[in-house]
Amino acid sequence: MTQVALFGAGRIGQIHASNLAALPGVQLRYISDPLTHSAEALAHALGARAVAVEEALSDPAIAAVVIASPTTTHSDLILRAAGAGKHIFCEKPVDLSVARAEACAAAVEQAGVACMIGFQRRFDPTFSLLQTRLRHGEIGLPEVLNITSRDPAPPPLDYLKQSGGIFRDMLIHDFDVFRWILCEEGRDEAVWLSATGACLTNPAIARAGDIDTAIVSIRTRSGRLCQINASRRAVYGYDQRFEVLGSKGLLLAGNHRPTEVLAMDAAGVRTDGPEAFFLERYREAYRLEMAHFIAQLQADAPNSRGGRFRTSIQDGVAAQRLADAAALSFASGQPVTFAA
Amino acid sequence: MTQVALFGAGRIGQIHASNLAALPGVQLRYISDPLTHSAEALAHALGARAVAVEEALSDPAIAAVVIASPTTTHSDLILRAAGAGKHIFCEKPVDLSVARAEACAAAVEQAGVACMIGFQRRFDPTFSLLQTRLRHGEIGLPEVLNITSRDPAPPPLDYLKQSGGIFRDMLIHDFDVFRWILCEEGRDEAVWLSATGACLTNPAIARAGDIDTAIVSIRTRSGRLCQINASRRAVYGYDQRFEVLGSKGLLLAGNHRPTEVLAMDAAGVRTDGPEAFFLERYREAYRLEMAHFIAQLQADAPNSRGGRFRTSIQDGVAAQRLADAAALSFASGQPVTFAA
Amino acid sequence: MTQVALFGAGRIGQIHASNLAALPGVQLRYISDPLTHSAEALAHALGARAVAVEEALSDPAIAAVVIASPTTTHSDLILRAAGAGKHIFCEKPVDLSVARAEACAAAVEQAGVACMIGFQRRFDPTFSLLQTRLRHGEIGLPEVLNITSRDPAPPPLDYLKQSGGIFRDMLIHDFDVFRWILCEEGRDEAVWLSATGACLTNPAIARAGDIDTAIVSIRTRSGRLCQINASRRAVYGYDQRFEVLGSKGLLLAGNHRPTEVLAMDAAGVRTDGPEAFFLERYREAYRLEMAHFIAQLQADAPNSRGGRFRTSIQDGVAAQRLADAAALSFASGQPVTFAA
Amino acid sequence: MTQVALFGAGRIGQIHASNLAALPGVQLRYISDPLTHSAEALAHALGARAVAVEEALSDPAIAAVVIASPTTTHSDLILRAAGAGKHIFCEKPVDLSVARAEACAAAVEQAGVACMIGFQRRFDPTFSLLQTRLRHGEIGLPEVLNITSRDPAPPPLDYLKQSGGIFRDMLIHDFDVFRWILCEEGRDEAVWLSATGACLTNPAIARAGDIDTAIVSIRTRSGRLCQINASRRAVYGYDQRFEVLGSKGLLLAGNHRPTEVLAMDAAGVRTDGPEAFFLERYREAYRLEMAHFIAQLQADAPNSRGGRFRTSIQDGVAAQRLADAAALSFASGQPVTFAA
Repeated sequence: MTQVALFGAGRIGQIHASNLAALPGVQLRYISDPLTHSAEALAHALGARAVAVEEALSDPAIAAVVIASPTTTHSDLILRAAGAGKHIFCEKPVDLSVARAEACAAAVEQAGVACMIGFQRRFDPTFSLLQTRLRHGEIGLPEVLNITSRDPAPPPLDYLKQSGGIFRDMLIHDFDVFRWILCEEGRDEAVWLSATGACLTNPAIARAGDIDTAIVSIRTRSGRLCQINASRRAVYGYDQRFEVLGSKGLLLAGNHRPTEVLAMDAAGVRTDGPEAFFLERYREAYRLEMAHFIAQLQADAPNSRGGRFRTSIQDGVAAQRLADAAALSFASGQPVTFAA
Repeated sequence: MTQVALFGAGRIGQIHASNLAALPGVQLRYISDPLTHSAEALAHALGARAVAVEEALSDPAIAAVVIASPTTTHSDLILRAAGAGKHIFCEKPVDLSVARAEACAAAVEQAGVACMIGFQRRFDPTFSLLQTRLRHGEIGLPEVLNITSRDPAPPPLDYLKQSGGIFRDMLIHDFDVFRWILCEEGRDEAVWLSATGACLTNPAIARAGDIDTAIVSIRTRSGRLCQINASRRAVYGYDQRFEVLGSKGLLLAGNHRPTEVLAMDAAGVRTDGPEAFFLERYREAYRLEMAHFIAQLQADAPNSRGGRFRTSIQDGVAAQRLADAAALSFASGQPVTFAA
Repeated sequence: MTQVALFGAGRIGQIHASNLAALPGVQLRYISDPLTHSAEALAHALGARAVAVEEALSDPAIAAVVIASPTTTHSDLILRAAGAGKHIFCEKPVDLSVARAEACAAAVEQAGVACMIGFQRRFDPTFSLLQTRLRHGEIGLPEVLNITSRDPAPPPLDYLKQSGGIFRDMLIHDFDVFRWILCEEGRDEAVWLSATGACLTNPAIARAGDIDTAIVSIRTRSGRLCQINASRRAVYGYDQRFEVLGSKGLLLAGNHRPTEVLAMDAAGVRTDGPEAFFLERYREAYRLEMAHFIAQLQADAPNSRGGRFRTSIQDGVAAQRLADAAALSFASGQPVTFAA
Repeated sequence: MTQVALFGAGRIGQIHASNLAALPGVQLRYISDPLTHSAEALAHALGARAVAVEEALSDPAIAAVVIASPTTTHSDLILRAAGAGKHIFCEKPVDLSVARAEACAAAVEQAGVACMIGFQRRFDPTFSLLQTRLRHGEIGLPEVLNITSRDPAPPPLDYLKQSGGIFRDMLIHDFDVFRWILCEEGRDEAVWLSATGACLTNPAIARAGDIDTAIVSIRTRSGRLCQINASRRAVYGYDQRFEVLGSKGLLLAGNHRPTEVLAMDAAGVRTDGPEAFFLERYREAYRLEMAHFIAQLQADAPNSRGGRFRTSIQDGVAAQRLADAAALSFASGQPVTFAA
């Protein structure tokens, strides 16, 4: 029975908590949150105990922690958990600062613990089937990747102000998808990146120093090309698609729909729009990523490189480097090139 | 240069006329219509001459006639054209009376002329590709055929009153599709047929002795099954689909759409409905069936059985027998069985 | 906390068990199965106790039973549970004999307990959204219902031999869908039914006295029409669709797919086929029907008519009457009419 | 009767010729081609005369010329036709040199003749319906445009060597679509453009100094964003799609398919791929653009600005400027900015 502590009892923490509770061979023992009543309510519902982080980390029975607290707390919790010898699942991003993220990766390695980052898209059934079929050569060599990534509506301004900006907050998922799909586990990598964008949905976002619409182009060392388009507002729902052109065909990952009802009337044919937002679209992905984390921990003694996780802390750092480059490219109007 | 006369300058006659005009190696020489001004207008636009039927039939240069006049005139014109030794293309149906239709078939055979019936669905690109792939064994042996056949709106009551009823006027196309898809050129045939229906769109149709909605079940000698559903009203457009279950899969012929625009908004996803009506949906089919008629005539001396046409007068008679059976089944509430 | 006993620890019993375990406010206390080790394994995994039926029924703490045992045991267990004053969820069918099913319904009523039948399709997200939109008048009055119901492959012959035949075993779900969609809670009803079919997949099925492919036509008192087509074999997957033509449009319930990956190559465009079988397609429906059963029980004191369940024992009896009629129609080659 | 001369009897010339022949009120009088037998064969089939360019231009009965000859001859023919006072339809591009294209535009203006450029995509039924609905405000203000533009296979190397490169030869259509969709008849314009690309299909293309795969990002003065992805090879067919995100929704123009046959088997669901290439996909667009050209000429005396054509010579020049900018950006690795 693997004993786990959860840090963060908010929306995403609750999802991880209920997924952990449904997994065989796992006990969610502790839940920590500065909002004590949130931690207690969640703990009560699931037969866990609400405790302070320190108490959870000092219990030798705890094998792993799940970090689902606000972004600003991630690096500190990673360092403390690594120091306590606990294996770590951490929501993205590792840290808004690449330097601090790298320090976390170093600490994790030194401590010899495993650390998985919550890039849940790699566990989405549609996305992961596409990636598997791509790796099996179904469309030959990948050449061009087009990613569409749109939220239904912008988050509150208060959130935006401390989000790190659209590239670090929102496109970081897309940078990870780019690496996952086009870079083939490090055999290729970005060498040129150009980004631009605009604030089109709400002038207050511009006043807060951010944009809401962005497009990015990336070229890899071997000449593969990637386009990302992202928007904070798609009134028709959460638009999460990508497609890969290969030498022998195309693979396209479409949106998921709540139902398969189709209606026809004098105005044409209507079907469901995409799932409303990430909690709906990635419900199954969240379940599968936590199952993966636990299964890998239980398979054998994990090493510090997290090599056996589908998404390691190194993946988290690499995606943040691309997000930093995109922010720089947008600010300067110039492309960013990466040393070979 | 094959010289042709056209009988009937109405809506469908105009379509055949312009398709004939665009075919190489054909001259549309005469056009006949009791409405002289219609014949003259059409003839003028296409460089033909408006004449009486008798004059067209007595010109030895005329090799073939195209009959696109009202249903009540078909059998008389077939008999006269056969008597004059002209090859014949005739719109469905041969005649509302099976007996008269059989007399036409006999006259055609005796005269040694070719006679093709305008079951244009067999020339629709989607339907004919499906049939070809079915015959090539793509889904193994066909087992179940489901036909959906819906008009956008009922025709005028005056038309309905002399139409012969929904089974003879509208489902005759579907009975031909059933024979084309499931009966494999006579190697199988209907042995049991059951029909029912109702008047749901307009009580005046019931007062005129007809119905507007019908469903039919057919079983063939070898146990293949067919369902037809037909309605005089589908407010979303002209609904023309069928699907075939086979031992190794399914083939489905979907509706055609005017464009491929897709719209997404808060209400969902919208695409075009089907083509508005038969002139739009079967535009290409009308073109291809006339090209087929002329090409077969030009290929060599056609024999009286019309065996080389995709749709012979025998096909026309056979579809009418099924329509009669369906009308009888509906009226009696009992199935009709056919001698083996 | 509602205490529940489960009878039957097989495939469908395991599904109900885990759905019950995940529901708040419910305790799955007992599991009974003649295969003791199955009951014990399932009980152990979920913290329940494996006991004999009698012990479960005699415990006054038990409020409800879930019957997921073989068909032949249903009526006996319903009678015993009703006699013990327990509310009942029973898998379809109530019994292969309509007379015994009616006796169960009478016993349930006399005992004043609630009884829900597991017509899970009414809880499928696609089907139930369609039905809700239909009831809200989105396409006006329903006129024609077309149901496609195909299994991926025939069950073992041993199962078939005691299944009651294709109409009672397989189409009973479709008869329930017919009543749910077209009969509007008893305001309309079947008055004429005609069925035919054939054995096309395996001669051994015919030797066992059954068929594997069937089509049914139904007309209601108000003239609404229904077509059902069913097959024991669709090599492309579990095909579960229906569509309703209404006076103002069409509503179509399509198949669910495992993923939304689309592939394009020189051979065309490929997407996922439908879910493999009922456990996959109706996974969510099974979850929702059990949640509905428990929620209705907890809402207030249920009455014996089960009026507050979406699927009552009366629905179960009515579907079986239609299945009997279809079997009779097929055997006789004649339609069956129902007294008004 | 508008009298027209055609220059060029190759593949695209033949299409324009047969479209002209089918238009009422037009006579295709002359056909010129250095390959005399090509001109004569086409002229014979359509009742025209094969003559030298000079003879056609010197006939005062000729009102308009259609230029469908090789790219290198376009500017010369435009200048001569304008000098002869003929209205002009010219295939894209005006000229590979923007300076020469501008000279053509000036000559056309000075001569007071109309000049339409053959950007046939603006006449594609799907694309033009999308644009109309966009202009009618269906999705609010346009914000992001994504264009996918892929040929099934690279053209011969000899063609590529004199094509002007992928940006001028292939993406020029996409730059026109960008201006048509996002720039709203000059009320917005590109201010920033970044392009990159690679040679991925055939090293011989790189040795010829070209690439086969390109991606472009454009930002307009008002902050609208455009992404173009183009490839010389999509083995699944001619991939021509675009989609527009607006403040109130999304409009997507999908590929056209030859038929609507859908097949299901154990390997999944298959439908037709896109039309094979531009002659198939844009067959209707070619017909409609020529009808538009003639109709506008016949409507009244056209002015030299060609303002009444959907695609003027100014549109041709503007698209070439963007193509030049993209080629420069790719070569330099830097974005190009345009003076406000």
